[in-house]
Amino acid sequence: MTAHLLTIGDEILIGQIVDTNSAWMSRQLNLGGISVTGKSSVGDTRQAIVDGVGHAANSAQVVIITGGLGPTKDDITKSTLVEIFDCQLVFHQEVYDRIAAYFQKIGRAIPVDSVRNQAMLPDKAIVLPNKVGTASGMWFERDGQVFISLPGVPFEMEYLMTNEVLPRLKAKFVSRPIAHRTLQTACEGESNIAKRIETFEESLPAHLKLAYLPALGQVRLRLTGVWPGEVTSDAAALLDAELDVKKTELLQIIPDLIYGEEDESLQEVVGKILRQQGKQFGTAESCTGGYVAHLITLVPGSSDYFPGSVVSYSYEMKSKLLGVKASTLATFGAVSAEAVREMAEGARETLGVDVSLAISGIAGPGGGTPDKPVGTVWMAVSDAQRTLVARHVFGRDRAKNIQLTGVYALNMVRKFLLEA
Amino acid sequence: MTAHLLTIGDEILIGQIVDTNSAWMSRQLNLGGISVTGKSSVGDTRQAIVDGVGHAANSAQVVIITGGLGPTKDDITKSTLVEIFDCQLVFHQEVYDRIAAYFQKIGRAIPVDSVRNQAMLPDKAIVLPNKVGTASGMWFERDGQVFISLPGVPFEMEYLMTNEVLPRLKAKFVSRPIAHRTLQTACEGESNIAKRIETFEESLPAHLKLAYLPALGQVRLRLTGVWPGEVTSDAAALLDAELDVKKTELLQIIPDLIYGEEDESLQEVVGKILRQQGKQFGTAESCTGGYVAHLITLVPGSSDYFPGSVVSYSYEMKSKLLGVKASTLATFGAVSAEAVREMAEGARETLGVDVSLAISGIAGPGGGTPDKPVGTVWMAVSDAQRTLVARHVFGRDRAKNIQLTGVYALNMVRKFLLEA
Repeated sequence: MTAHLLTIGDEILIGQIVDTNSAWMSRQLNLGGISVTGKSSVGDTRQAIVDGVGHAANSAQVVIITGGLGPTKDDITKSTLVEIFDCQLVFHQEVYDRIAAYFQKIGRAIPVDSVRNQAMLPDKAIVLPNKVGTASGMWFERDGQVFISLPGVPFEMEYLMTNEVLPRLKAKFVSRPIAHRTLQTACEGESNIAKRIETFEESLPAHLKLAYLPALGQVRLRLTGVWPGEVTSDAAALLDAELDVKKTELLQIIPDLIYGEEDESLQEVVGKILRQQGKQFGTAESCTGGYVAHLITLVPGSSDYFPGSVVSYSYEMKSKLLGVKASTLATFGAVSAEAVREMAEGARETLGVDVSLAISGIAGPGGGTPDKPVGTVWMAVSDAQRTLVARHVFGRDRAKNIQLTGVYALNMVRKFLLEA
Repeated sequence: MTAHLLTIGDEILIGQIVDTNSAWMSRQLNLGGISVTGKSSVGDTRQAIVDGVGHAANSAQVVIITGGLGPTKDDITKSTLVEIFDCQLVFHQEVYDRIAAYFQKIGRAIPVDSVRNQAMLPDKAIVLPNKVGTASGMWFERDGQVFISLPGVPFEMEYLMTNEVLPRLKAKFVSRPIAHRTLQTACEGESNIAKRIETFEESLPAHLKLAYLPALGQVRLRLTGVWPGEVTSDAAALLDAELDVKKTELLQIIPDLIYGEEDESLQEVVGKILRQQGKQFGTAESCTGGYVAHLITLVPGSSDYFPGSVVSYSYEMKSKLLGVKASTLATFGAVSAEAVREMAEGARETLGVDVSLAISGIAGPGGGTPDKPVGTVWMAVSDAQRTLVARHVFGRDRAKNIQLTGVYALNMVRKFLLEA
């Protein structure tokens, strides 16, 4: 089963927006057992759409078109699809009623002409009801191929993909159970992970695959299983059980690298542990300038375990708010094991927390020295019993150094809490 | 002049990475007077690349191919291009020497086989030297069309686009001077800006265009001029002068909305003003959890004017570290004009700064009440003379509320400093 994604809209061609839709769609289709073999983007003109659909149709069984359906556009996509599939626009009362109800729900007057226009849909299309917006999805079939048109607004597209498109595609094209398990790792590179799980990976049967999905400082490991035999009534449950066994094996081989499952973020995992242990946590940040506190507080409900943070960018703030000794700063500098240790211990006192994290480093591009190059970051985690200190040397890019420090620091806090 | 962008790589088709390259390339090409009429992505196979190049060649004068050139790939792009253009790989000593020197510079041993392979390039291609990586760019010409192949690593692609591709394309295809002026606005929507500058926009001659480039809480206004007449020796200078006049007009119509020019960020502008005024600045953040401090400290050299910040998520931290009165919190709550005023005034004291910013709000999704709905944010800016307080009500999305608060708060600080 192959799919081609076609994006319509000048805003993508002029680079005004980054196309995040198609990456999301690709991941969802892949998870459902459908391979994306090509993507393309064309402008808002009839000819470009005709050519784009023609090209897409030559390369895959399913063509998913996004964009060009909004009420303020000239509905160029819809009228061009009517032409391509040689059909007529007909009025759909149920679509009109749904859009009218949608406007009432969000407390706005019903723009009757525009809603009538949105309710005119091609007679050869199955209408995919959009409950979170005004532009309906459309599903055409021709000579065994499927053509789907969706609005380009990300949450409307995601709603229609999740509730209409993926279930229908799976029912039509995917005959075998498919399932996935994702494990999240931090602070180790793809090739080193691969070495440690080489034997595991080689032992996987042909119907189970392992994918490495890297991001800055993190790698997601995704196990995908496709039921290999006859599709019996217990096939899906058996495949799930097999994946759970393999997931547990992986957890036992690299327990030190795995911090969570599925879509969990490091800050969510740290928050969950803090909540379970009933501990209060705070940060004292120098080179990250509040970034770790920002990550922690992106999690809803974080106020339950996070009373606050001190961003001590200057020597004076490190002394005044965290009690770092002037002699420590004078002797070892702010980017040192001694300074982060005092920062972390001082932060517990100042913030009144059980566990604290302190960070001090040289984010760059300036400020490096031969023995403390740009990218050098010291971090410490402290509670009433102990204070652990670690040093890392990242790269030369300021923004990346800050982000990587966030990953390494949160992972250090996670391990500290679990070892407590 | 039209261009088609072709991306090669399975990592884009499976949705593992979001294609930010092509948005950047589109913007740069547009700025240079070259229209992108289509984009496409294909996988890492010979057939997919042959089909992709063929399709691209049918739709534009210039085809720019990115990806599939790294030393760990099988060089499938290079070998397929050799086939498409019916040529041979030849060894380039100067390319070998440059890559070898690059490895020496970054302090790594030279992987001789891999470098030799990278120095084998098609005899029909002009080599575009890559000084920031190991994969060279290639420039082919056939029947008046240009085909360019670039590595997919963003900063290598950007280096080659800026230093090789754009100057060569302009010299070859763009005969008229083109120039741009960008103004950055904050805290006003696209349609309201459009109303205020309607007369200005209508008065623009046909060879000057105004584009609105919106982002969260911000809109960039870009004036583009294409020299309309005969290309005399002073044409470029005259066009520049005309754009400067129009830019000044725009600045005079909406001086309250414009915060900067070209690619300046709000935090850079705020930093510049602080530096000029010789003032120290700090933040006291509740609902933004350190996000504004993070923005401020993303700017290199910010330690010159930013000693630090207090993230006071809890009532206790607001009282203990910022001196907010318990009675204020009890009477008005933490999300109130009174509380942010005391936070801002307390922060000046605690952080020892000339100017402070305080923020307290309900980021959501929980915590809203009928009179303080989710998205309600109070902010205050304070110096020794005065404290200004403002309230905004944003939306329901936690991450967006935090980001919007960052924009509104930094803009408030900017105006406060300029009015001082």
